[in-house]
Amino acid sequence: MSKKLTTRSQDYSKWYNELVTRADLAENSAVRGCMIIKPYGFAIWEKMKEELDKKFKSTGHQNAYFPLFVPKSLFEAEEKNAEGFAKECAVVTHYRLKNNPDEPGKLMVDPEAKLEEELVVRPTSEAIIWNTYKNWIQSYRDLPILINQWANVVRWEMRTRLFLRTAEFLWQEGHTAHATEQEAQEETRLINQLYADFAENFMAIPVIKGIKSESERFAGAIDTHCIEALMQDGKALQAGTSHFLGQNFAKAFDVKFATAEGGLEHVWATSWGVSTRLMGALIMTHSDDNGLVLPPNLAPIQVVIVPIYKGSEQLEEISVVANKIKGELEAAGVSVKFDNRDNVKPGFKFNDYELKGVPLRLAIGPKDLEKGQVELARRDTFTKSFIPQNELRTHIPALLQQIQKELFEKAKNFRDAHITEVNSFEEFKQVISEKGGFVSAHWDGTVETEDAIKKETKATIRCIPYQAQEEVGVCIYSGKPSSKRVFFAKAY
Amino acid sequence: MSKKLTTRSQDYSKWYNELVTRADLAENSAVRGCMIIKPYGFAIWEKMKEELDKKFKSTGHQNAYFPLFVPKSLFEAEEKNAEGFAKECAVVTHYRLKNNPDEPGKLMVDPEAKLEEELVVRPTSEAIIWNTYKNWIQSYRDLPILINQWANVVRWEMRTRLFLRTAEFLWQEGHTAHATEQEAQEETRLINQLYADFAENFMAIPVIKGIKSESERFAGAIDTHCIEALMQDGKALQAGTSHFLGQNFAKAFDVKFATAEGGLEHVWATSWGVSTRLMGALIMTHSDDNGLVLPPNLAPIQVVIVPIYKGSEQLEEISVVANKIKGELEAAGVSVKFDNRDNVKPGFKFNDYELKGVPLRLAIGPKDLEKGQVELARRDTFTKSFIPQNELRTHIPALLQQIQKELFEKAKNFRDAHITEVNSFEEFKQVISEKGGFVSAHWDGTVETEDAIKKETKATIRCIPYQAQEEVGVCIYSGKPSSKRVFFAKAY
Repeated sequence: MSKKLTTRSQDYSKWYNELVTRADLAENSAVRGCMIIKPYGFAIWEKMKEELDKKFKSTGHQNAYFPLFVPKSLFEAEEKNAEGFAKECAVVTHYRLKNNPDEPGKLMVDPEAKLEEELVVRPTSEAIIWNTYKNWIQSYRDLPILINQWANVVRWEMRTRLFLRTAEFLWQEGHTAHATEQEAQEETRLINQLYADFAENFMAIPVIKGIKSESERFAGAIDTHCIEALMQDGKALQAGTSHFLGQNFAKAFDVKFATAEGGLEHVWATSWGVSTRLMGALIMTHSDDNGLVLPPNLAPIQVVIVPIYKGSEQLEEISVVANKIKGELEAAGVSVKFDNRDNVKPGFKFNDYELKGVPLRLAIGPKDLEKGQVELARRDTFTKSFIPQNELRTHIPALLQQIQKELFEKAKNFRDAHITEVNSFEEFKQVISEKGGFVSAHWDGTVETEDAIKKETKATIRCIPYQAQEEVGVCIYSGKPSSKRVFFAKAY
Repeated sequence: MSKKLTTRSQDYSKWYNELVTRADLAENSAVRGCMIIKPYGFAIWEKMKEELDKKFKSTGHQNAYFPLFVPKSLFEAEEKNAEGFAKECAVVTHYRLKNNPDEPGKLMVDPEAKLEEELVVRPTSEAIIWNTYKNWIQSYRDLPILINQWANVVRWEMRTRLFLRTAEFLWQEGHTAHATEQEAQEETRLINQLYADFAENFMAIPVIKGIKSESERFAGAIDTHCIEALMQDGKALQAGTSHFLGQNFAKAFDVKFATAEGGLEHVWATSWGVSTRLMGALIMTHSDDNGLVLPPNLAPIQVVIVPIYKGSEQLEEISVVANKIKGELEAAGVSVKFDNRDNVKPGFKFNDYELKGVPLRLAIGPKDLEKGQVELARRDTFTKSFIPQNELRTHIPALLQQIQKELFEKAKNFRDAHITEVNSFEEFKQVISEKGGFVSAHWDGTVETEDAIKKETKATIRCIPYQAQEEVGVCIYSGKPSSKRVFFAKAY
C-alpha cells in the first residue's frame, strides 16, 4: 500500500497497469487475455451501464438477449464481417469431457462428442441477430426494430491489456432494422450523438465525433461513425462506434419487407456499441500519479469520512458526528463511506482513498468537533479547507457538481491544446513523435496514403470530423488535392 | 393472433410452448438448445434482476465479473464438481478460423490454431472464482468475501425447453468466502430465505424451503438448500438453490487464511443462484388458457388504455382523456401504454394484451367520455367495472397491489391443496400419478430407496422441508424407521 505508483512520466504504460490492479479495478485471470473485473471496478461499470441503458430506453430502444454462439455457417454469411473476425475467433468444437483413461482424476475432450457444425463464440452479433430478424420482419409495419443487448463477447487478441484490449469483454451492442436508408442513417448519427453526450456529460471525457476512413471501418459496414477521446500520453482512444450497415446484412440473410406501396425491399441496418474499454478511457483521462481520479458521477463512493482520534472514547464522539453527516449527505443523494477501521492509521486511509479516486474526503478530529467543522480535501486538486458541519449538506452536492464540470474542462483544455494543424509531412512526423495528440491534416482520401503514413509514423486516421470544413488543400503525403482535413493520431 | 392457444387441459406442455412464443417472451434460435429472449420477455427478466440485485446489495454483497472460460486443469480440480458437469460442457479447442481452400467463401477451423489447453465454457464458476480467491485471501481480515455475478452459463443439455432447460441461460451466481463454518452456514440460509422472499413477495410464487437429499445436491456441495415451487400441472420446479460448500473448494484450490489466533485454516464457502428458469416458473404459476397472467410487480406494462372509436375526431377526443389518465398514473408510478394503433380493431388489441398478461385494461369509448368514466377489466379474473376517471389515480395503484396479493393467495391455495400426506407406497403411487403435487412421506434416508422410488414413479425428493417435524414413522418404500417426512414430486 505504501509503495508509490510508477509515475506517468517514468512509464505511462506501467503507471496504467499498476493503477488498474492497485486501485482494485481489475486483474488478469488464469485464462489468457481474460480479465477479472473486481467489485470496485464493476461498480463503476454498473454506473455507466445504468446511465447508457436509460438513454437507450428513452430513445425507444428495448433490451433483448441473443445466443452466445454463432454456427459457422451463419458466421460466414456476410463475407466482409466474417473475414474481419475470422482470425480472432474462439471456436467450440466439442460438447463433452470424459475421464482420461491414462491419467486418473483428469479429464479429456471426448472425441465422440464432436459437434457437427462448429460454434463461434460471438465476437459481435450481427450474424445471429440478422438470421433472427429474418423471421421477425415481413412488412413495413414490423419496422423499425430497435434492440440493444448487454453481453460478453470474445475476440482472441494476441496482445491484451486490462480493459483496453481483452479476449473477453463486456459491452452493449445495438442492432436496428429500418425501412429506409435515411432512417438508418439518422439512427447511426443519433446513437453517435448519444455516445458523445454520455462521454462528455456523464464521464467528463471530451470527444471528437466523426466518420472512419475505409480502412478503420467496421467489417461489414458502409460507414462507421465514432467518438474519439484523447489520453494524457497523447494517444487517441476510440470510445464508441455506430455503424451504418446499409443492406449488407439484409442481403446476406435475405431479409426483405413488404413496403406500404406493395413492393418488396431489403431492410436497412445499423449496429453500435461501447464496451468495458471505456473504463480504460476513464482511467487515462483523469487520473494522476497518486492514483485514480473519478468524476463524481462515476464514483462508487463520492465522499469518505475518516476519523482522526486517539482511543475509543474519541472515536465514539467522532462517530456520532460522522454518522449524522453521513445520513444528511445520503439523504441529499450523495454516496458516503465512514471508514472507522481501527487497524489502519488515517494516513494509510488517505492514501488508499486517493488511490481509489474518491472525489472528496472529510477528516474529523477532536479539534474539529470543538469547532463544529470538518477538514474537506478534494481528490482532483488536493486543495483542503475547513467547512462548518451544518453547511455540508448544501456545500457537498454543489461541490461534486463543480468537480464534475471542472474535470471535463481540464480534460477538454488538454485535448484542445493537443489538436495541431499541420501542412507538411515533416511537420506531421514531428508533431506525432514529439507532442502527440490529434494532428489535423489534408489527406488525399486513398487507402494507400493512409497505409504509407501508418507504416512510417504509426499514426492512423482516427476520424473525419463532423465539423471538418470544406477547404482547398493538398495531401501532406502525396501532394494530391484534398477538400477536408482529417484527424490523425497514434491510438490505443 | 386470432388462433386460440392450446388449452392446459388439452396439452399442458404444448400450451406452455405456444404461450412462450406467442406472448413474445422467447423463441428457439439457430443454435441447438439456445434461446432468444425477446424484448417483452427480457423486460420481465430485467425487473427480476433489478429487485434481486437490490436485495443482494442490501445484504452486503457486491457484483464483479469473472471469465467466461475455465481452463480444463482448473475445471477438474474439485473432482465432484467436475464429474457433475463434465458430460455437458461446451469446449473451446481453437482460436482461429481460416478460408477453406476447398470451398471458396467458406471458413474452416484452422488446425494450426489449436489451444494448448482446452477451455470449458463455464457451466458454473466455482473453479475460476476459487482459483482467484486464492490470491485475494491471506488473513481473516480479508474475509468474508461476498460477491455475486450476473452472467451467462452453458450446460449442454440434450433435451431443452424455453426458459426451463436451455443450453445457454442467464443467471446470477453468488460466491462467498468465510472464516468459519457457522458463518458460511448462516449465509447459505440467509440467501435461501432471500430467494423465498423474492419468489413469494415479488413474483407471487409460493415456495417450500428445504434441503436437498444427497442425490439431488449440487456437485461439490456439502448441503444444497432450495426453494421449490409447484406448477399448475402438479409438477414441482426448483426455483433457486443455495449451497453450503464446506471447505471443498478451498481444499481443491488451496485457499487458506491466517486466523486472528495465528493459525492457518481452509476457508469456508457458499454459492447460490437463480436463473432465467424463473421465467418458466412465473409463466406456469399464474397463466391461463387465454395467455400470460403477470403479477403487477413484473408486468412491463401494468395498464393498457384502448380507445373505442369511429373516425379520427372521436379518436382525438378520447386521446386527450387517455393521455391525461396516462400522465396521472405514471406520476403515481404505474407503467401505462396507450395503444392508439389505427390498423387493428379493439377486439384484436384486447386479445393481444390478454395473451401478454397486462394486468389491467382501460377501454374508453364516446359514452365513457360523456359519463366521465372508463371500463376497467382485470386480466386475472376477467371482471369488468366502470370507474370514474377522477378516481383512477388512487384506485389503480391500490388495485394493482390487490392483484399482486390475490395472485399469490390463489397460487398458495392451489399449492397447499396439492400437498398430500401419505403413509403407504400404494397411496404414494396413486397420488403421484393422479393428483400430482407434493407428496409428504416418510423415507429411510438412503439413496437406494430414493432411486427405487424414482424408477418406479418418476417422483424425486424435492426437499427435506425446514419445517418438517420430528416424528416417529416408517419409510413408505422400505419400511425402515424414519424420523421426518420429506417432500416428493415429479419435477421440471
